[in-house]
Amino acid sequence: MKAVVFDEELKLVKDYEKPVPQKGEALIKVLMAGICNTDFEITKGYMGYRGVLGHEFVGVVEQCEDKSFIGKRVVGEINNACETCDMCKRGLQRHCANRQTLGIWKKDGCFSEYMTWSVKELLEVPDNVSNEQAVFVEPLAAGLEILEQLHIQPIEKVVILGDGKLGLTTALALNACNVDVTLVGKHQNKLDIAKNQGIKTLLLNDLKVQKEWDFVVEATGSISGFETALNLVKPRGTLVLKSTVAASKEINLAPIVINEIRIQGSRCGRFAPALRLLEQNKVDFTPLISNIYPIDKAIQAFERNKEKDSIKVLLKF
Amino acid sequence: MKAVVFDEELKLVKDYEKPVPQKGEALIKVLMAGICNTDFEITKGYMGYRGVLGHEFVGVVEQCEDKSFIGKRVVGEINNACETCDMCKRGLQRHCANRQTLGIWKKDGCFSEYMTWSVKELLEVPDNVSNEQAVFVEPLAAGLEILEQLHIQPIEKVVILGDGKLGLTTALALNACNVDVTLVGKHQNKLDIAKNQGIKTLLLNDLKVQKEWDFVVEATGSISGFETALNLVKPRGTLVLKSTVAASKEINLAPIVINEIRIQGSRCGRFAPALRLLEQNKVDFTPLISNIYPIDKAIQAFERNKEKDSIKVLLKF
Repeated sequence: MKAVVFDEELKLVKDYEKPVPQKGEALIKVLMAGICNTDFEITKGYMGYRGVLGHEFVGVVEQCEDKSFIGKRVVGEINNACETCDMCKRGLQRHCANRQTLGIWKKDGCFSEYMTWSVKELLEVPDNVSNEQAVFVEPLAAGLEILEQLHIQPIEKVVILGDGKLGLTTALALNACNVDVTLVGKHQNKLDIAKNQGIKTLLLNDLKVQKEWDFVVEATGSISGFETALNLVKPRGTLVLKSTVAASKEINLAPIVINEIRIQGSRCGRFAPALRLLEQNKVDFTPLISNIYPIDKAIQAFERNKEKDSIKVLLKF
Repeated sequence: MKAVVFDEELKLVKDYEKPVPQKGEALIKVLMAGICNTDFEITKGYMGYRGVLGHEFVGVVEQCEDKSFIGKRVVGEINNACETCDMCKRGLQRHCANRQTLGIWKKDGCFSEYMTWSVKELLEVPDNVSNEQAVFVEPLAAGLEILEQLHIQPIEKVVILGDGKLGLTTALALNACNVDVTLVGKHQNKLDIAKNQGIKTLLLNDLKVQKEWDFVVEATGSISGFETALNLVKPRGTLVLKSTVAASKEINLAPIVINEIRIQGSRCGRFAPALRLLEQNKVDFTPLISNIYPIDKAIQAFERNKEKDSIKVLLKF
């Protein structure tokens, strides 16, 4: 089968061995998949991963012990946890030290015609949710993760820095939960996508640098965003770190102590609340789709993903 | 009157003008005061402060509009807030942008025979609390601040890094609230002070560097403590920053995102719960007192404070 593999270099392999489901796994025919910046980071060395890339997908179950699953359209949580360790017992499977993470850690990903994945991580996609929307469930869940970690009061003000896919998705997620969100970025055309869905937007140049925000979400994907974020958050406020940036930066921690700032690292979230938003049509991801490429043009799709004017690039199988 | 003043250099001034209480202020005869590392940082340029140093004191009210206060032994919250701004209305007077901070910002401190301070910031010291204990109310309140900011469950494990006065005081504060605390440091004699009050202790060399702590409190006063702390905190755990260090450090933020770490800056706390612990004899600070100097030997006291084997140096008036 065809598969997009990273192994020293990124390549489209035409005769990759079709996977055989192990105990507890389903065989899934992939319908559509999304390229995430994490995939791009992996091609630069992140996590030291080698194998089939990809963790955002929607597919159809072809083989499964539980016959009622066969033929169902599904998405899959990206972490497959052991369910027995301390973290799992606390419901924090996403931090299980023994976990596999789809296309990131110890498990081939979804950029291939077929994939296998633990049945317990699969969720059925409601009929009224298209593949083009369903494929966004993972980044949407990552945006909602902020609300699992933090209590944002309805009166509090949130600013999100960065109008790339991370910032846009987070803005759509929080706005759909009636959080008072302002999205800040450098690209009017990207900001307009948020604006058209009722989100306040600001060009970075028009942002007043004052410590007046209860929550600042750093989603620029750049290490320099951290300093800007610190200059925007109120004393006793919260800075949410969403970007995973490999680079380091010289940081002075004293203002964090003096202003009693909380910094919250935030990664991936649960799918169920994200699917609920999609089912209720409370978010529309189609304006984020820059291109949809067939798997044969996967390398081209990765190139397109790197271009500044692209937002989300999808693969179709 | 005699006063310890920082003005380009640290000096003991013998004819400093005795302060006159302004509206809402009391005149206080200082009985005892404590030297804090912040005082030392100010002599290195922190906050750009010039004036009488000192913010930890116990004294007696000599003049006051409210006559019932006269003759009372008091301590004083270190921030005098405007009570009208947004922060004050939220009960966060300690973050009021218009505040005076005793001996740190826009207000002469307590290292002088007499001082004035806003009556609303004064708390009466219970009769059974000695001056030697009462003078620790400010650092004790700073330790308890962690419990104002964070919910630490009784089952969760806390490690405090640093056996200086900051670490020791924080350990005593949390232990007195039945938090499961382990204090880690380099000095057996300092650790023994905590051990004698029922706190688990470990020499730094005996500490296993594993991500197994729910909460890690960084109180080493050194910028390198941050990295150690990050290597000890569980995924989804919390790193409390207590040290205010002027220096910067190159930091990689990615592990904070991947492990969804929370970093909580923590500064000063409310006095009432600290006084309650002192009144109930739940903490004993006398073993932390290295020396008590008369005001005439204040410069010597500052020198003593710098020495590695000293913990807390007090001034007596």
